[in-house]
Amino acid sequence: MLNFQHKINTEFIFGKNAEKNVGKKLLSYGVKKVLLHHTGEDFLIELLDKIKDDLLKNKIDVYELGGIEPNPRLSLVREGVQMLKQENIDFVLAVGGGSTIDSSKAIAAGAKYDGDVWDLFTKKSDIKSAVNIGVVLTYPASGSESSNISVINNTDTNEKLLISSTHLAPSITFMNPELTYTLPGILTANGIVDIFSHICERYFSPDTYIGIIDRMAEGALKTLVDIGIKAINNPEEYIYRSEIMWIGTIAQNNTLGIGRIQDWASHVIANELSALYDITHGMTLSAITPAWMRYVYKNDVIRFARYAEKVFDIKLENDKEKQALEGIKKTEEFFSSLGMPVNLKQLNIPEINIDKLAKSVQYDQETNTIGAIKKLGITDVKKILIMANE
Amino acid sequence: MLNFQHKINTEFIFGKNAEKNVGKKLLSYGVKKVLLHHTGEDFLIELLDKIKDDLLKNKIDVYELGGIEPNPRLSLVREGVQMLKQENIDFVLAVGGGSTIDSSKAIAAGAKYDGDVWDLFTKKSDIKSAVNIGVVLTYPASGSESSNISVINNTDTNEKLLISSTHLAPSITFMNPELTYTLPGILTANGIVDIFSHICERYFSPDTYIGIIDRMAEGALKTLVDIGIKAINNPEEYIYRSEIMWIGTIAQNNTLGIGRIQDWASHVIANELSALYDITHGMTLSAITPAWMRYVYKNDVIRFARYAEKVFDIKLENDKEKQALEGIKKTEEFFSSLGMPVNLKQLNIPEINIDKLAKSVQYDQETNTIGAIKKLGITDVKKILIMANE
Repeated sequence: MLNFQHKINTEFIFGKNAEKNVGKKLLSYGVKKVLLHHTGEDFLIELLDKIKDDLLKNKIDVYELGGIEPNPRLSLVREGVQMLKQENIDFVLAVGGGSTIDSSKAIAAGAKYDGDVWDLFTKKSDIKSAVNIGVVLTYPASGSESSNISVINNTDTNEKLLISSTHLAPSITFMNPELTYTLPGILTANGIVDIFSHICERYFSPDTYIGIIDRMAEGALKTLVDIGIKAINNPEEYIYRSEIMWIGTIAQNNTLGIGRIQDWASHVIANELSALYDITHGMTLSAITPAWMRYVYKNDVIRFARYAEKVFDIKLENDKEKQALEGIKKTEEFFSSLGMPVNLKQLNIPEINIDKLAKSVQYDQETNTIGAIKKLGITDVKKILIMANE
Repeated sequence: MLNFQHKINTEFIFGKNAEKNVGKKLLSYGVKKVLLHHTGEDFLIELLDKIKDDLLKNKIDVYELGGIEPNPRLSLVREGVQMLKQENIDFVLAVGGGSTIDSSKAIAAGAKYDGDVWDLFTKKSDIKSAVNIGVVLTYPASGSESSNISVINNTDTNEKLLISSTHLAPSITFMNPELTYTLPGILTANGIVDIFSHICERYFSPDTYIGIIDRMAEGALKTLVDIGIKAINNPEEYIYRSEIMWIGTIAQNNTLGIGRIQDWASHVIANELSALYDITHGMTLSAITPAWMRYVYKNDVIRFARYAEKVFDIKLENDKEKQALEGIKKTEEFFSSLGMPVNLKQLNIPEINIDKLAKSVQYDQETNTIGAIKKLGITDVKKILIMANE
């Protein structure tokens, strides 16, 4: 186990009707003025009305800013920051999923900074504090409801940048699995793949020792495989929805990642694919991951074979390599069963430019590589993309 | 998954030399005056000196209170409370294990209460706040370094009472596995059994559904079984020490217990056995647990059979009951291999009074039972004790 520092800032209120506690809870936090931040989509209106009523009933002033889009935009963040500064708003409540939470985090940090909020993303200034953030989670996927991370899109400069700070971790998250009953199947599937990937990126560490964190990660992956398709086919089954919601959170707040080197190669490649061709994050992940696995598994056949056994019950006593490959095949079949693409062809990109894609990937500035179980340079990434395109 | 509220208040600084960050970290928390609280045992002196130097170097005033005994006493807690009040001490740093941390928590809560600290234990008053608490952990077992709980012994009234409050959870815990290299084997073994039990009490839930929390608990139990005896035989093996230390923490801060009914029957019986015959907590747990398991397993043969498979690799396809029983036998063998007693006889109590013991157990006041997977009344407890004494 490597040295680590670990703190989960978030208080979780989990279960049926969790969001009914919003007003009372925020009052106990001493909140006076809330910015309710959301996409404004139709399915949210009833929920937002209930939350507003509850906040007002608890004598908390409510301000509202809707209109968040996927890949949340800097322009709306700036609008939010101005509202917080002008009205002395002391809490941002995100009602939604990853984009909404990320936008809320940026607003919360921007409100405590004298200059333009984008400075925090370009590292012109550190994040020294932020207004407190809360979340009513409606879409389990990003894990942003308990993570330190926010990614914002600057459409003026065409940059999509990430900030990470303990100040950004939500203080409180209300998690009612029933709020996800109405999610379309394909969104549920995208979420499951994103969560599955967040765990894989921690699990496929270059360390060969298997200990508590590996075993907990295997338990999380196994649970997703067990319930994934059932959750999509039975959208109102509470237990499946609650398991996905909780796994989504611990997948990204480092409960399953402490003390180890992580490998974010497939996430980094997928991000670029999303950016260039405007495809959802979950889709690009499921399209890239099988090829990434096939390209790197030889660096730790034992771990990949173990993954096959623990997550997919595959045991081929005398052929670890075959077992490892079978596990990768099963990963592919799992994603397919959810209705997700498992190669670039299935993304239906009219003309894909693999060279350009491989070049655009954000390699580590010092080593010009990504990944850890196998360090990947541009040539490796190109090979992975070619494999994913076959 | 049942509705739950969950918050881990503790920041963890984990790894080699973790305690070297004490001064710098407490300074960043704005601490001005620290009470260093400990047992005063010889093996601690060097560590305490280093911590004192580091605190003073960071311009933090150091006060000191040693002399904590196992089953920490109210009299010393009162002394500590007085010191905090008189000197305006704003932080209690526990250097030690469960008893030290529990005593520190009681002092921290007492310092913020106008009356006598014992009122908080007798529920004459609620715990409304507490001075911040930190821990330098030297003995992984109780999980008190990240839990809300403190148990204090009032030798005047012969009462041993528990308080639980989020205000008691340490703000920061420094965990250096190297500090446990010199633990005698039998203390390591006691710690492992205590940790194993904390997980079992959450795992053996009356709920038959198997999900993420069950699987993570199985991973933790499996890891303890894998490394337990190796850790004792190789006391300076960092990886074993670090795994035990981290599992000890997550075993008791509800990472493995959220959203489920828990079953604390064996812990409650063991507590009474410790109190009446002055035997360590770990010893009474390992002496009671196998009999408890044999008495209750029929209420969920499937779960006990699963436990046998996931924790001890036992698979008897066509006989779940035999598999369950084999798992219990393996539990016994595991405790034995650590040098721990697995029945009352091995505790060498000159004259054990089973009737008195069964009567003294702290049953739930409403139902007169303990436990959950099977609710146990006094007759059941007597039967378990007889089984454990055979």
